[in-house]
Amino acid sequence: MKRKSLDGAVCSIARSLDQVGEWWSLLIVRDVFRGKRRFGELLESLGLARNILSARLKRLVECGVLEMRPAGDGGPYKEYALTAKGQDLIVTLIALEQWGNRWTACDPEAPLLRVERATGEEIAPIQIRSRDGRPLAAADLALVVRSDGPG
Amino acid sequence: MKRKSLDGAVCSIARSLDQVGEWWSLLIVRDVFRGKRRFGELLESLGLARNILSARLKRLVECGVLEMRPAGDGGPYKEYALTAKGQDLIVTLIALEQWGNRWTACDPEAPLLRVERATGEEIAPIQIRSRDGRPLAAADLALVVRSDGPG
Repeated sequence: MKRKSLDGAVCSIARSLDQVGEWWSLLIVRDVFRGKRRFGELLESLGLARNILSARLKRLVECGVLEMRPAGDGGPYKEYALTAKGQDLIVTLIALEQWGNRWTACDPEAPLLRVERATGEEIAPIQIRSRDGRPLAAADLALVVRSDGPG
Repeated sequence: MKRKSLDGAVCSIARSLDQVGEWWSLLIVRDVFRGKRRFGELLESLGLARNILSARLKRLVECGVLEMRPAGDGGPYKEYALTAKGQDLIVTLIALEQWGNRWTACDPEAPLLRVERATGEEIAPIQIRSRDGRPLAAADLALVVRSDGPG
């Protein structure tokens, strides 16, 4: 499929998708977040072709979402890890996960729950909020051009 | 590119991406959210091939993210609108937009700001929170299998 790169476009959603919009890319980020850090683990988990996985990983490293580190076991292997930029993507992933839980058919055999590790409590639904903490609906939002006033 | 459908998979992120993970699909949702509702408007805004746009719109309608309505002007045209499921995706889109603002190169000519319409104030960064409102980091989260106890 032909794709027009929107890297230079104004919209930050388009710029973001240009880096991580590839279907597999977000699943790779999810898997690394889950602790699957080696090429072989990702290959097995995602079940996609070796050359596609290689290309996606390369792109994610180039974009600074993933980085390669020596594996923790002192062996010759390297493993993938989320950078700060990659970790910051988890908010988007969790928002997508919660949307999927609400709107896509769930496997009744093994429903998964996203919890706070320390308490075991399910986390709250992610919400858009004003600076003073009020929940906002989609209809409350507008997009404006920033005006850089003096100071 | 060959894609394995993950529709039946346990992970809700994978199920979500199966419906809206296509690069263009989220941009279409963004554009409809912005008020571009006719095929011709979307074609012009996105700059992609007519047959690809048709296919993506069809898929989004089939998944219940978009629906077709008679255009408000009483003419023969139909327009696309976000369903409740589509509107609920805006949280994910805004999370992705904010991530892009923080981590991808911005066009200095026209920086855009997402504001609350009523106040003109920029919205808060979206955060993952516990049920009692505490902000949680990615490292605080775990995924567990729901145990359905009695009651």
